[in-house]
Amino acid sequence: MSHRLAAGTEQYHTHSLAWLEDAEHGIHVPVTEIALEPSGEHPNPPVQVYRTMGPGSVPEQGLPPQREPWIIAREDTETYAARGHRLEDDGRAAVRRGAPSQRWQGRRPAPRRAKAGRTVTQMHYARRGMITPEMRYVALREGCDVELVRSEIAAGRAIIPANVNHPESEPMVIGRAFLVKINANIGNSAVTSSIADEVEKLQWATKWGADTLMDLSTGNDIHTTREWIIRNSPIPIGTVPIYQALEKVNGEANALTWEIYRDTVIEQCEQGVDYMTVHAGVLLRYVPPTADRVTGIVSRGGSILAGWCLAHHQENFLYTHFDELCEILARYDVAFSLGDGLRPGSIADANDAAQFAELDTLAELTHRAWEHDVQVMVEGPGHIPLHLVRENVERQQRLCDGAPFYTLGPLVTDIAPGYDHITSAIGATEIARYGTAMLCYVTPKEHLGLPDRDDVKTGVITYKIAAHAADIAKGHPGATARDDALSKARFEFRWRDQFGLGLDPETAVAFHDATLPAEPAKTAHFCSMCGPKFCSMRISQDIRDTYGSAEAQAAIAGMQAKSREFLAAGGQVYLPDPVVRG
Amino acid sequence: MSHRLAAGTEQYHTHSLAWLEDAEHGIHVPVTEIALEPSGEHPNPPVQVYRTMGPGSVPEQGLPPQREPWIIAREDTETYAARGHRLEDDGRAAVRRGAPSQRWQGRRPAPRRAKAGRTVTQMHYARRGMITPEMRYVALREGCDVELVRSEIAAGRAIIPANVNHPESEPMVIGRAFLVKINANIGNSAVTSSIADEVEKLQWATKWGADTLMDLSTGNDIHTTREWIIRNSPIPIGTVPIYQALEKVNGEANALTWEIYRDTVIEQCEQGVDYMTVHAGVLLRYVPPTADRVTGIVSRGGSILAGWCLAHHQENFLYTHFDELCEILARYDVAFSLGDGLRPGSIADANDAAQFAELDTLAELTHRAWEHDVQVMVEGPGHIPLHLVRENVERQQRLCDGAPFYTLGPLVTDIAPGYDHITSAIGATEIARYGTAMLCYVTPKEHLGLPDRDDVKTGVITYKIAAHAADIAKGHPGATARDDALSKARFEFRWRDQFGLGLDPETAVAFHDATLPAEPAKTAHFCSMCGPKFCSMRISQDIRDTYGSAEAQAAIAGMQAKSREFLAAGGQVYLPDPVVRG
Repeated sequence: MSHRLAAGTEQYHTHSLAWLEDAEHGIHVPVTEIALEPSGEHPNPPVQVYRTMGPGSVPEQGLPPQREPWIIAREDTETYAARGHRLEDDGRAAVRRGAPSQRWQGRRPAPRRAKAGRTVTQMHYARRGMITPEMRYVALREGCDVELVRSEIAAGRAIIPANVNHPESEPMVIGRAFLVKINANIGNSAVTSSIADEVEKLQWATKWGADTLMDLSTGNDIHTTREWIIRNSPIPIGTVPIYQALEKVNGEANALTWEIYRDTVIEQCEQGVDYMTVHAGVLLRYVPPTADRVTGIVSRGGSILAGWCLAHHQENFLYTHFDELCEILARYDVAFSLGDGLRPGSIADANDAAQFAELDTLAELTHRAWEHDVQVMVEGPGHIPLHLVRENVERQQRLCDGAPFYTLGPLVTDIAPGYDHITSAIGATEIARYGTAMLCYVTPKEHLGLPDRDDVKTGVITYKIAAHAADIAKGHPGATARDDALSKARFEFRWRDQFGLGLDPETAVAFHDATLPAEPAKTAHFCSMCGPKFCSMRISQDIRDTYGSAEAQAAIAGMQAKSREFLAAGGQVYLPDPVVRG
Repeated sequence: MSHRLAAGTEQYHTHSLAWLEDAEHGIHVPVTEIALEPSGEHPNPPVQVYRTMGPGSVPEQGLPPQREPWIIAREDTETYAARGHRLEDDGRAAVRRGAPSQRWQGRRPAPRRAKAGRTVTQMHYARRGMITPEMRYVALREGCDVELVRSEIAAGRAIIPANVNHPESEPMVIGRAFLVKINANIGNSAVTSSIADEVEKLQWATKWGADTLMDLSTGNDIHTTREWIIRNSPIPIGTVPIYQALEKVNGEANALTWEIYRDTVIEQCEQGVDYMTVHAGVLLRYVPPTADRVTGIVSRGGSILAGWCLAHHQENFLYTHFDELCEILARYDVAFSLGDGLRPGSIADANDAAQFAELDTLAELTHRAWEHDVQVMVEGPGHIPLHLVRENVERQQRLCDGAPFYTLGPLVTDIAPGYDHITSAIGATEIARYGTAMLCYVTPKEHLGLPDRDDVKTGVITYKIAAHAADIAKGHPGATARDDALSKARFEFRWRDQFGLGLDPETAVAFHDATLPAEPAKTAHFCSMCGPKFCSMRISQDIRDTYGSAEAQAAIAGMQAKSREFLAAGGQVYLPDPVVRG
């Protein structure tokens, strides 16, 4: 199996693992520290970056259950005679074989749930004024006051997805008052993918910065694949339980029942799923209005339930059993991700009656979940032209009293299959700027096929860009620190620092070397755009020399040092042409 | 030499060359026509797409001078004893050799200019109420009233870059009332690139949809490379004359003089350059304020002139000779692209005093150019955080009375070297949405190296997305037609139509085939996301069957036909897993 990201592996040689400490409460939060070269005599402090990859794991062993002591110390949970794993949970192939293809052999904590009459959600604690280690952890991570975390969670404006059965996870917060987060989707493939492939996709997604991950598997070994993923995941795991329920009835939507769905939810609660997409807002009366859409219903879960409602001419069983569902999730601290089953599948269908009618119901369900102290986020579109994007988040925030919004893109045009990571990143930045708390990534394969490992990386990095650009536009404290450090490095020709501070140092180095492969070029005091003969940045330096502040002039010393260093190295760098704009 | 795009070559097999006709005036505008499959019995009309690739050319021969009759018929230009081509225009290597590396042997029209006392700009004609063939051509292309074209040009709110010495070009309009346009940059490389490579980049850029192209060459054979490009270009060509002027003084900015610059401008006017970036707004007094910026001056032209101003402690000679420059450009109908030499090089420097001071001067120069009936667009940033983008275009439009804004991106974050086509497309869509008329593309190699052919393609397609998304957000008439046709095809599983309607059919097909290579999959009435067993779109069809309008139900017939076709073909398509969100 893959050991690609065994403990300690870093993205780039100037990156290292460091810790934020809350010694008083024994909380240690890992961050990636990026070492920088000095500007002449003046050292540049290292830049610390939010880190989601965890300590790294060997897939067969999984991660240590670091949250377990916190959970046990609260004395409000118990282990119990759990439903556990049944062979049929892994599908007919496993039943035929008599076993899943790769049984999980690693550590498996006994399933826990709330003691009778207790509620164990972070919202429940927050509303009672309790500050949990999970809250302290995310406050350190976000660099904010822990009281802000507690009060936002108490008000329902933020969530910490943290199933008591996923003690391996590192707490993170989703809410508009905090850094914008991104989700990556994976899922096994009946064709090519193995359990090992899925664990590697998880590690790959976290390496590049995914904040949460959804396992959308529907192939063979669903249960066991999920087990491997959860045991190895430092980030919260989400699922769409209706997918597995559908497998349990051999793909016949009409054969679904509340009992089968309920059994599947409990199975996944015991495994440690942190949030579940539930399409309880797809009501029977909302289905007809979708008939004349250009693209009808494109949400898979939404269409399963619409099909069920039509076949039985009954109300959606997820809606009619919603309170019972709340009671189950409350016992494990699983968060709702209220699915937008009627989201538009094209810009032509954006912001239509069916979409907004469902949102009204999602708002009703948000408040009902809160009555049970269950954490909630609300899912959003999809495909929306840019001028209609803002209305989506403002309407959701108003109707749902600030419950975190979790959107898919949205794509702002439908004419670029193969580039929908870009068409959606444009909409994602806009919607996050106005308050969306988490963005679900879109990969280049969207609408065309299944993302491979490279697509996962491209999707994650594209969405890190969207989330970060939104943090800056929101004026989030300290959001521009990394930009400013990189820009300063760029101006001072600290190439290695420019690479190290970027989201993807490997690609930046490769692109640089494609033009200037020579090692001296990395210490050259000019860039490939103009070459050594004429350098626009050098003229800026002369200007600083003449007019700059003491501090600005100091930086020049560093560049002149670089220059000497370069010439001393006998650095000959051939002269490419400047492909830059006037 | 490359024959890649010899006449008739199309992007995709369902694409063909068609014509928009203004029979009365003998005007024929090429468009790409995309043939569509029927929805059952109901034919789908072909979709016509704006086309910039021209008729295709064999590089050694160039394109036919289709505008020549229009220019001659106006009887206001004359051929004359031109400055012509001098060996030193191609740099020292050519002088040593006694010849440029590949002399242009194709057709070369005798240089023309306005007869004494005449002005031959489209603005001049428009202000006198004349409707030129160029105006009729762009009205057909844009699908608007020709009077809108004339009045926008007369008001200075739009330009048609159309040097009388570039009769091979197909007229196009740049202005906020029209489709948002994109520019691609190329330029020869002392290292790897040849004249043939540059002509191929031109053809590649136009194949994917670049509306204008800037030749930023500074290597050997500058003049001759530009000759090959202009003679083969169906789109307007822009340059930054100060680059070649700098080569003429061996790269010593201080040695530049107005006379050398003026000579270079005339040389390029005679060749047929359609617009020129002129950094006349970089005034001596604006230089000191840049000293304490994080990234100083990053515009190459801007820093050349800032360096000159400092060295001589004199005002920028482009500013002091601006009226003389207007007189020259007016005789050839070359448009100004007033360069923003002090644009920010990082989000930290965005919207600062130096940037906006220069913009005030660009507004003054815009009005001075208009006094000479010279067409003008104004260049803009650069690097701007998303929440500060809108102010840039609204301020420029106000100060410059609606003169077309031409921006570079802007990038909305600085932390993603290797992905700046994406960071900049986000800002580009935002700034175009509020009125920017043309977007200069950014490739993945920005800040790192020199774009190759693949980078040019990625940059162009990324910017087609930004420009189109902005057209939709602006509510431009008919902007969503292609989106809606593609969405309808997607819903009806017309895979080939979905590919053909996309910006990059080749990539879309490749991605689709990576998951479902089997030919039957292209007629399958389900997609790779869900597979044949369960299909969300099929349920939407059932809903239509029950509740849909007559028209909506009609489409179903088509899908059922597809289904039969697929099964008849014995179409077995293996079942991948659904990697889609809830």
